[in-house]
Amino acid sequence: MKKNKVVVPISGGMDSTVILYKAVEQFGAENVFGLSYDYGQRHKRELELAKYHIEKLKIKEWSTIDVTFIKKLAPTSSLTNDNIDTPDIRQIAGEAQPKSYVPNRNMIFLSIAASYAEAVGANTVYHGATKVDSLAGYWDASPEFLPTINSVLALNREIRINIEAPLIEMDKADIVKEGIRLRVPFSKTYTCYSGEDLSDANSPSSALRIKGFAKAGYIDPLKYRQDLVDVWKKYNCRLIEYDTYNN
Amino acid sequence: MKKNKVVVPISGGMDSTVILYKAVEQFGAENVFGLSYDYGQRHKRELELAKYHIEKLKIKEWSTIDVTFIKKLAPTSSLTNDNIDTPDIRQIAGEAQPKSYVPNRNMIFLSIAASYAEAVGANTVYHGATKVDSLAGYWDASPEFLPTINSVLALNREIRINIEAPLIEMDKADIVKEGIRLRVPFSKTYTCYSGEDLSDANSPSSALRIKGFAKAGYIDPLKYRQDLVDVWKKYNCRLIEYDTYNN
Repeated sequence: MKKNKVVVPISGGMDSTVILYKAVEQFGAENVFGLSYDYGQRHKRELELAKYHIEKLKIKEWSTIDVTFIKKLAPTSSLTNDNIDTPDIRQIAGEAQPKSYVPNRNMIFLSIAASYAEAVGANTVYHGATKVDSLAGYWDASPEFLPTINSVLALNREIRINIEAPLIEMDKADIVKEGIRLRVPFSKTYTCYSGEDLSDANSPSSALRIKGFAKAGYIDPLKYRQDLVDVWKKYNCRLIEYDTYNN
Repeated sequence: MKKNKVVVPISGGMDSTVILYKAVEQFGAENVFGLSYDYGQRHKRELELAKYHIEKLKIKEWSTIDVTFIKKLAPTSSLTNDNIDTPDIRQIAGEAQPKSYVPNRNMIFLSIAASYAEAVGANTVYHGATKVDSLAGYWDASPEFLPTINSVLALNREIRINIEAPLIEMDKADIVKEGIRLRVPFSKTYTCYSGEDLSDANSPSSALRIKGFAKAGYIDPLKYRQDLVDVWKKYNCRLIEYDTYNN
């Protein structure tokens, strides 16, 4: 088990939840500091899921940071663009990008996480970037991004903080498998941006998730609006038993 | 006059105000985007002063970002430290450091400023660091800090954003002189952290300001609780006429 403390940003999504369980395995629950970003009312469901895992894992420290301000920084915001009805180009392209695209968001969030790490004396921050993110071509998910951010933090002579992305080599199927190994209750993770009780299998982020589960050979325990029996049959998927029975 | 647009963070303090007037001289008011950080009620006075200059200079765009969250990131916050009465070591040392010291604050604020710059299509962000800051020994005011932050932003393939510190070679006296050249109404800038109507000449930040004015040979038009006539006499200081008569 690694010594020292780790800050883990958690969103309620499957990637950050898998990282949280991994962090507990590596550092021990008493050395994990959860950090959630509150974007406003629309994301309360994600915060509730984060709370579920924090309590289940007996993590003592969990801070929620109000980042409602980032809505103002979106190019589609009324502050920065008169035509607020213009949809973001990435939405048109059908990519798995949240509605409120904000430039430089990764740097903003990692700066806040590094600040929190210094405040609590943690040397490590876990970042949720995955293989899919690095393939999407965004500059702040490129292979050079984290090392360059870390070269800024390396200037800090008081405390050495390093940001690591434990899922950076993994695609969705790898993440599902890693989550199953760690006994992550995937029914308590949320992927769809629709905000509805039943997830929409056709949303880009849900489609990516379903494909990941199918490729890994497991039935996603999340409830979808659509009947996905044919998908699970086609890929010969198994039930995630501990998840089905325990939640 | 420089082409393109510039983002200028403004606090109501003298350094950022001088930068604002300099930016208008260099880029033209229509290309300056003001950005203020709202820390909560205690700083409303600073926001009112920022508004005064924005209107005086006829700057069209000014955004205020609610960063109340940073209080939570202070090591003296109840979230990160059980003993919230512990004063920050830099306060004990009498340094000009705000009460709510937050680790990594420069990186957080510059990340937000760079985000805003990308949203409005500005290639330059002006940062308020001065010679005094770089001498104080903080890692995030060291000569390596801005170039390293800029090496992160240089990874952005969509837009080239560069952060510059136009006052980095200047001490307080130089900044006073530059402000006089630019006809900055210094009576409408605020330095003291006390939050009172009359500034306290004995607070570390006010002492630095008063010394800067005296060294430059000018009477600070700000109203102080203490009688500073002897200081101005000793240094043979002149009135700042346009400020005294116009405000």
